[in-house]
Amino acid sequence: MITLASDFGLAYPAAMKGVVLSRTDGRLVDVAHDLPRQDVRAAAFWLRETLPYFPPAVHLVVVDPGVGTDRRAVVLRVGDHVFVGPDNGVLRPPARRVAAELDDDAPVEAYEIDVPNPESTTFHGRDVFAPAAADAHVAGASALGSVDRFEPIPVGSLSECRLSEATVSDDGREATGEVLVVDDFGNCITNVPGAFVRDAAGETVWVNGESVPVGRTFEAVARGEKLVTVGSHGNVECDVNHGRGDEAFGLAPGDRVELRVD
Amino acid sequence: MITLASDFGLAYPAAMKGVVLSRTDGRLVDVAHDLPRQDVRAAAFWLRETLPYFPPAVHLVVVDPGVGTDRRAVVLRVGDHVFVGPDNGVLRPPARRVAAELDDDAPVEAYEIDVPNPESTTFHGRDVFAPAAADAHVAGASALGSVDRFEPIPVGSLSECRLSEATVSDDGREATGEVLVVDDFGNCITNVPGAFVRDAAGETVWVNGESVPVGRTFEAVARGEKLVTVGSHGNVECDVNHGRGDEAFGLAPGDRVELRVD
Amino acid sequence: MITLASDFGLAYPAAMKGVVLSRTDGRLVDVAHDLPRQDVRAAAFWLRETLPYFPPAVHLVVVDPGVGTDRRAVVLRVGDHVFVGPDNGVLRPPARRVAAELDDDAPVEAYEIDVPNPESTTFHGRDVFAPAAADAHVAGASALGSVDRFEPIPVGSLSECRLSEATVSDDGREATGEVLVVDDFGNCITNVPGAFVRDAAGETVWVNGESVPVGRTFEAVARGEKLVTVGSHGNVECDVNHGRGDEAFGLAPGDRVELRVD
Repeated sequence: MITLASDFGLAYPAAMKGVVLSRTDGRLVDVAHDLPRQDVRAAAFWLRETLPYFPPAVHLVVVDPGVGTDRRAVVLRVGDHVFVGPDNGVLRPPARRVAAELDDDAPVEAYEIDVPNPESTTFHGRDVFAPAAADAHVAGASALGSVDRFEPIPVGSLSECRLSEATVSDDGREATGEVLVVDDFGNCITNVPGAFVRDAAGETVWVNGESVPVGRTFEAVARGEKLVTVGSHGNVECDVNHGRGDEAFGLAPGDRVELRVD
Repeated sequence: MITLASDFGLAYPAAMKGVVLSRTDGRLVDVAHDLPRQDVRAAAFWLRETLPYFPPAVHLVVVDPGVGTDRRAVVLRVGDHVFVGPDNGVLRPPARRVAAELDDDAPVEAYEIDVPNPESTTFHGRDVFAPAAADAHVAGASALGSVDRFEPIPVGSLSECRLSEATVSDDGREATGEVLVVDDFGNCITNVPGAFVRDAAGETVWVNGESVPVGRTFEAVARGEKLVTVGSHGNVECDVNHGRGDEAFGLAPGDRVELRVD
Repeated sequence: MITLASDFGLAYPAAMKGVVLSRTDGRLVDVAHDLPRQDVRAAAFWLRETLPYFPPAVHLVVVDPGVGTDRRAVVLRVGDHVFVGPDNGVLRPPARRVAAELDDDAPVEAYEIDVPNPESTTFHGRDVFAPAAADAHVAGASALGSVDRFEPIPVGSLSECRLSEATVSDDGREATGEVLVVDDFGNCITNVPGAFVRDAAGETVWVNGESVPVGRTFEAVARGEKLVTVGSHGNVECDVNHGRGDEAFGLAPGDRVELRVD
């Protein structure tokens, strides 16, 4: 199985599919091709929340603002999962989440993909990463070293992308975090753990100085009203029932969020 | 085969795919993940127009404004087709259309999916419906009763969602209906049967008091001009050639439409 | 393998998938369903840049502003690739690109699909082209003549769609072309060959009288700044780093572009 994720939008992902299918008849599964454009951090978040649900697969990820620079093209193995993409950190959060669910002694390996002309401005998704994903699929996770163009490198040499973590006061009444991403619907997903508000359903919480109801579901408040809830990723969200939380709260990715329960 | 439809937009559908594929290697087919958000009626329309074209399959449908309330999670069998989703009526119109094309004695059954903590705000698409769809696929339509978490319930106990029907005067010259949905392109799809205008191509029809040409194709009128036509679903549409019918006619879903032919 | 491309947006493509899968269990691959609406020329461009990367397949293409007119429904074979769609020229640029990569003596054939009621306004994507694509897949590229509804026609009788070509002065310092398409991100893709600016990276080029930096990557200029670069399709693009080139340059598809290097 080969999953595909990118920020390519219209038509470009299909060229990658064609290249992969020219080399293997493995099953393809689209994850998303409308990831926020050239936004490594947001892509890392969405893929961390998505890829670990898949059975072992080759995960082709192309969110690559550095194409044409000297950033490396890499392959990362975590147990039976294989991640293929640019060495800009986007692979690390989903790989770390997958690793956390495996035995501690599951093999972890990294390879650099030999790119004859790395600074070329050709379409690396189509010309470098898609063939590498197909080759990894054909070789299998346990035999990546047998692919000619894959050169072993230390895992520690990979670029990192760490999603920020919120701080919660010792008495559990104050949390300081940030908006990690805003989803399609305007929901502001923070890095504050859901446990912070989970006992407060039906009460209110202070969000950057404003008192907001905590609801288990959107319908806990009237249409158009703000609420704080816990999303499927387990984090605190700032939302609006039938509306856009980002606009109502004036929040964007990276913005600081201070929460307080009385 | 397992079809997937939701209003989830970016990335969330992929988590459902991962869960299904962790349980079965059945074929997945995306129907749509950009169904109008939390709009059961519109989703029911689109799925009624789409799912009946599929060969026997498990249809996973997650348009679920009531997640976290006590609405049930259900499985509905109609012959060899299986529908999995929330008990909010969204499954009924497509299931009814499928049933209409089968023998009268094709088996119809309903099951409630046991959800340990139904009022949880977790991601039911991923945590309840996707596993249930996979289990239904593995068991097969004729052995749904063998799935542990499926409890038989009377079909009559399922929530209903009926798409409104237009009324046509006895002389066939006046129809009163409503806009069922507006599609991506602004075409206003009504519930008035296409037969009402099918003989009027090249003539005009009164739409809420305004005279509008009837065309068999968009090109029957100049670009930017209004027309009334019959869509692929067989219903009367209020459209604009190379433009948006909803804006030109001032119509939205649920709006009343009165048609008259002279 | 059957690829699917259309300008249908929401839900309609799924009806085509259902029809195909009712007739064959061949593999389906979505190419794009958000091709520019009723824009044969833009679709032809994107498909020319995409379909040739696929292994031999049946390519179902439905961008069909003339549905309901007397335009023919056709099947075009080029070697082991088969193209199914309306006879409005949209199939020709991708077919020509595929042919260019094959032996000169690879068979090229054309067929008209018998449509009982061609001027009907039914959904030809679902009711004519999808069944034809399934039938072509089942028969195989080398036996299209065995499908009852396919009638051989001369390849030369097919409608044509030629994407314009730029003219470059003898000294290679002036190019006159046009914008072929604008992609999702606002990048203006011209028909000027990339070779025109490939040696000018780090320098500037005149675009319609304005001096613009030439960059190998977007990051060659500051965010929000214009640049000229060479896209993955090998053509000159007018772009903005982290912005929309179409807005900054005031360009739209079909607009004339005059380039000059000093």
